Amino acid sequence: MPRPVVRVRIYKYENLAAAPREAEDDLAAEEPLEIRIAGRPISITMRTPGHDEELALGFLVGEGVITGAGPVPHIRRCEQAPGDSVDVLLDGATIDLGGLTRHVFVSSSCGICGAASIDAVRKRFAPLGAGPSVPADLLLRLADRLRATQANFERTGGLHAAGLFNSEGELLFSREDVGRHNAVDKVVGAALRARLLPLSAHVLLVSGRASFEIVQKAIAAGITIVAAVSAPSSLAVDLAHEAGLTLAGFLRPGRFNIYSGPQRITPGASATTG
Amino acid sequence: MPRPVVRVRIYKYENLAAAPREAEDDLAAEEPLEIRIAGRPISITMRTPGHDEELALGFLVGEGVITGAGPVPHIRRCEQAPGDSVDVLLDGATIDLGGLTRHVFVSSSCGICGAASIDAVRKRFAPLGAGPSVPADLLLRLADRLRATQANFERTGGLHAAGLFNSEGELLFSREDVGRHNAVDKVVGAALRARLLPLSAHVLLVSGRASFEIVQKAIAAGITIVAAVSAPSSLAVDLAHEAGLTLAGFLRPGRFNIYSGPQRITPGASATTG
Repeated sequence: MPRPVVRVRIYKYENLAAAPREAEDDLAAEEPLEIRIAGRPISITMRTPGHDEELALGFLVGEGVITGAGPVPHIRRCEQAPGDSVDVLLDGATIDLGGLTRHVFVSSSCGICGAASIDAVRKRFAPLGAGPSVPADLLLRLADRLRATQANFERTGGLHAAGLFNSEGELLFSREDVGRHNAVDKVVGAALRARLLPLSAHVLLVSGRASFEIVQKAIAAGITIVAAVSAPSSLAVDLAHEAGLTLAGFLRPGRFNIYSGPQRITPGASATTG
Repeated sequence: MPRPVVRVRIYKYENLAAAPREAEDDLAAEEPLEIRIAGRPISITMRTPGHDEELALGFLVGEGVITGAGPVPHIRRCEQAPGDSVDVLLDGATIDLGGLTRHVFVSSSCGICGAASIDAVRKRFAPLGAGPSVPADLLLRLADRLRATQANFERTGGLHAAGLFNSEGELLFSREDVGRHNAVDKVVGAALRARLLPLSAHVLLVSGRASFEIVQKAIAAGITIVAAVSAPSSLAVDLAHEAGLTLAGFLRPGRFNIYSGPQRITPGASATTG
């Protein structure tokens, strides 16, 4: 039964001087889907469950594998797979898999269900450190500081941003990119060059939403606190829980949500960052 | 010389009853970057030019290839490559390329420069048809119609949407997903099942931004008019120009921009869709 929305328990900061209150929140579901052609896995995509057969067909139209001229291919769900998997049957037509244009997972190490994806991250990267503690009001001010650096976003409306801050809220690096994951890679690469890894005493802020991939990149760099201006996905929150990462989101004037790891955010103001 | 922003000529509709005026606009630059390890290509990512060496390093941290414990790898740009390419030298360390978690291009058919990427799309898909003509005011109303279907976005703030309309502005299919490309795949898959391909008489609307990948998927499905609520990237516009696709964006109350193919949008109102 596909679930496009997942309900979770969160901590809501609405009065920054007081402890946050517990509440329920709805998140966009994110789970991997494996797409096969005649039994052969060709892609794993992180998607919102539902309409999976249409997703597989549309993906193959985009690859030029299906044109719409022939019959509509049959699709079956692979019930024996550990996660969600759909198999597209092309009625004996041979296709050139080497000609696929698009990003394709060359490894199944990421797993094809959420739990396996999270497990793969845990096996690959060192556990996170204790990390810093950051005042609630400071976290909110980071979004203003990042926005002030986004000259190209102001001009184009088409760029994501990522910023790396120390636990006093000072901006160390900010980068813009059409891809949010690229902006995070650039910030982590800049920190690596400055020999700052692991970034256990730092805060990563991303414009827009936080996906599984963004949280994975943060864990790889040792980052313990991630904040997103908009909402996280369900799998981003699951991964943050498992890794002990603090994930905040929906940063708005005077309020925000904590989805995981509330112990690293403290009520009230920081004396050093008035 | 990296250009994070590209200036282009556009058509601005500000008075829907009159012909649009020509203007200049700044777009976020999108171009492919190839990342190599010791000369071996391992990934091509669509990114905004600039800080490419940091992007490569951060990407490899996210893959677990670099941990920050050893020396910072040397990087050189591959000047002989036809596009942008950076080569990361790991000082003789051997890595398990089969263990990479992330999307990796298994084919170089997409090319590693914008022109090659566009050329690959042209070779792969049939040329677009003449397509319909759509009144300017109708195009604007599509965004309201798509938003009205986004029940899950309202609840989560974390879902993109794509909608397929006929040239009278009737919504045929709308789909939501954490990934905008997935939402487009789902809509195209639904249309395939309804045996509507090629979609030469239809309009595709996406929430948020329009990238190269979104325009490529539209061309694959034969769609001649794509509208995005937010801004397109430079390479999305270049591809739309080459393919003869109408690309509109920045849909706001009473105004929008046309980045390519203005002949399919006509000033004024549609009598059939009051």
